[in-house]
Amino acid sequence: MYGEIITIGNELTSGRTLDSNSYYAAGRLTASGLQVIRITCVGDNFKMVTRALKEALGSSRFVIVTGGLGPTDDDITNEIVAKALDRPLSLNKEMSEQLKRLSKARGLEMTPSVEKMALMPEGSKILKSRHFSCGFSLKEKDVCLYFLPGVSSQMRHLLDTSVLPDILSHYENLPLIGQRVLKTYGLGEPGITEAFKKLEGKTDEVVFGFYPHSPENHITMSVQSNDESEILNTLDRIEGEIRGVLGAYVFATDNDRMEDIAGRILDHRHLTISVAESCTGGLIGNRLTNVPGSSGYFKGGVIVYSNEAKEDLLNVRHDTLKTQGAVSDLTAREMAMGVRERLQTDLGLAVTGIAGPAGGTKEKPVGTVYIGLASGGQVFSGNYRFWGSREQIKANTSTMALDWIRRHLNEYPFLSGI
Amino acid sequence: MYGEIITIGNELTSGRTLDSNSYYAAGRLTASGLQVIRITCVGDNFKMVTRALKEALGSSRFVIVTGGLGPTDDDITNEIVAKALDRPLSLNKEMSEQLKRLSKARGLEMTPSVEKMALMPEGSKILKSRHFSCGFSLKEKDVCLYFLPGVSSQMRHLLDTSVLPDILSHYENLPLIGQRVLKTYGLGEPGITEAFKKLEGKTDEVVFGFYPHSPENHITMSVQSNDESEILNTLDRIEGEIRGVLGAYVFATDNDRMEDIAGRILDHRHLTISVAESCTGGLIGNRLTNVPGSSGYFKGGVIVYSNEAKEDLLNVRHDTLKTQGAVSDLTAREMAMGVRERLQTDLGLAVTGIAGPAGGTKEKPVGTVYIGLASGGQVFSGNYRFWGSREQIKANTSTMALDWIRRHLNEYPFLSGI
Repeated sequence: MYGEIITIGNELTSGRTLDSNSYYAAGRLTASGLQVIRITCVGDNFKMVTRALKEALGSSRFVIVTGGLGPTDDDITNEIVAKALDRPLSLNKEMSEQLKRLSKARGLEMTPSVEKMALMPEGSKILKSRHFSCGFSLKEKDVCLYFLPGVSSQMRHLLDTSVLPDILSHYENLPLIGQRVLKTYGLGEPGITEAFKKLEGKTDEVVFGFYPHSPENHITMSVQSNDESEILNTLDRIEGEIRGVLGAYVFATDNDRMEDIAGRILDHRHLTISVAESCTGGLIGNRLTNVPGSSGYFKGGVIVYSNEAKEDLLNVRHDTLKTQGAVSDLTAREMAMGVRERLQTDLGLAVTGIAGPAGGTKEKPVGTVYIGLASGGQVFSGNYRFWGSREQIKANTSTMALDWIRRHLNEYPFLSGI
Repeated sequence: MYGEIITIGNELTSGRTLDSNSYYAAGRLTASGLQVIRITCVGDNFKMVTRALKEALGSSRFVIVTGGLGPTDDDITNEIVAKALDRPLSLNKEMSEQLKRLSKARGLEMTPSVEKMALMPEGSKILKSRHFSCGFSLKEKDVCLYFLPGVSSQMRHLLDTSVLPDILSHYENLPLIGQRVLKTYGLGEPGITEAFKKLEGKTDEVVFGFYPHSPENHITMSVQSNDESEILNTLDRIEGEIRGVLGAYVFATDNDRMEDIAGRILDHRHLTISVAESCTGGLIGNRLTNVPGSSGYFKGGVIVYSNEAKEDLLNVRHDTLKTQGAVSDLTAREMAMGVRERLQTDLGLAVTGIAGPAGGTKEKPVGTVYIGLASGGQVFSGNYRFWGSREQIKANTSTMALDWIRRHLNEYPFLSGI
């Protein structure tokens, strides 16, 4: 079943705001077996909104429109839609009641700017919400139109609880689409392309997509069928084939992040970890603690931006810092051992490097990073050269450090470079 | 001057990948005085790409197309464009040379999949690049078409160095558009709307936009004129008017982030800071160190996820943790004093809270956060209730903590709630 998404707002066409609403909606619709054929983004402009609506009415069975339903003066979607579809605006009593009730619950007054949100095109049906929002639907010939606010949390709530169930109730026997994402780290697109040549003939029933998500590369697999178990079997088989040629470069599937994978292994093994971060400034700890339940294995860490902090908090030797420098193999090793000792954990993970833009030298240019990992009686270390902005270097360093946990505990070799 | 953007890729229409390319391009074009009237996103589908191209050729003076120019099998933009515009594909020698040269510089071989990238529609002119990419331009009647790769770094590089200069070279006397963003934290959209009513009549020459960027709210001002100094004067005057009614809620303009502002004040005052993070897990340190030069004032921090770490690293008293709990006002205060002492800094900033989804109680539900700040001989503390997912609660906590630095050093009162 074909449909499309229209997002409205000058903030989008002028590049002030990233349109994450259409991304979310497209993902949810696709996962439900519906197909999004186009996403159109236009400004708060009568002519362009009208054209987008008319174009969509001629191509699609359902249209989801987001943006411009709020209380501020630049929220004019209702007005534009009323004119474009020739359905005069009038006060929708049900919406007015809903807004009053929600205002009261939040201890707010019903201001004229809020009252304006209840002015809707003739024939609108409101989408019920526990949020302070004002979505509605319209039927124009046999096309279902849904109008949602641009505020992401409200849009997502209404899409999931009202719009998707309504669309799906109109159709039966939708073909099922199974998708799976395989996430790789450490191998570029050309390397993946070459590896895939070894699969020839084994993967014909699957449509592949290849997507760089710096610093990772993602491979998507898509299978269509009316039989759910056939889809799952095919995806499992092909995933096995791909893992056969890509090996440990594949670190996760679907929504799992590197920190979820690292955390899961630590959790299964009943191991604890601590981190000592220099150039990443807390990013590794932040990522580890994005995982619910991480307090079970993550005990804490230290952010040691200064040499004094490295000595005082981690017992890195003064002599090491003086002779080898703060960005060195030995410093990374001593940091890893020091944090492990300090926080009494099974593993101690450390990074030290030059995130830039300043601070690089000829011997140690910006992007030079040393990683240390203390585990059991052993200490491992290695160094890398990352590229890009300060934030890209921090991101890549944190991914590599988390990958060290995964590779170490699975007994895969560490990556030698990237 | 009107133009539009077309992004191509099944990964976009299926919601697997967020389209940040059109966002970047729209922002850059707008800043150059050009107007983007539409952004259209379609899958790798002959019919939909053709329709988008034809629609754009009839509406715009320039069209920027991104995606599908790479080496993998799903990169079929060149083929589709060749058919849609009836311009057969042929090997572009200049592009072939450029790819060979760039392959060699990276120590890679020229594989057939890379060679395919040099097959281009008749009449194409290549866009020169120092990256391993393959953008080109075409002129169709009097419309300029630019085709760019979907990989963000390559797209951005070609847009900035080739496409923008080329578009601008075609036009003279473009009206200038001045934009400024005022970022606020701590006041909702309705509060901003009400405050703006006090400005009536004083701001007529400016177009405003109001955009929630959770947990912040941004206000954009846009002025059009042929006189650059008039634009600047108007923006300065209106900014002053808005600051007059919104006061300390306005924390930054344009690209400055809360961490830039907090860092700048610390830097100007020659003050140093350290952080003690529980529920944020390193996020505050990560944000502080995203600012180049932050090593001048940020000495480090500790991530104390466990009670033992709070005691051992920060000298939080065992009795405090036992009687008040790890998430309490007194713990936040002792953490702030402890980290300041430990890292010998002027300020010590601490947060402790419940990020969820588990761990909440009736007295201290998920989202409960205590902040402590030690400065000079004083210790400040406060508590908040934040909403949303684990990551939203972490994000809001980190913004509030950074805002405490700004408010404390500027002698603004701390926010009492949000």
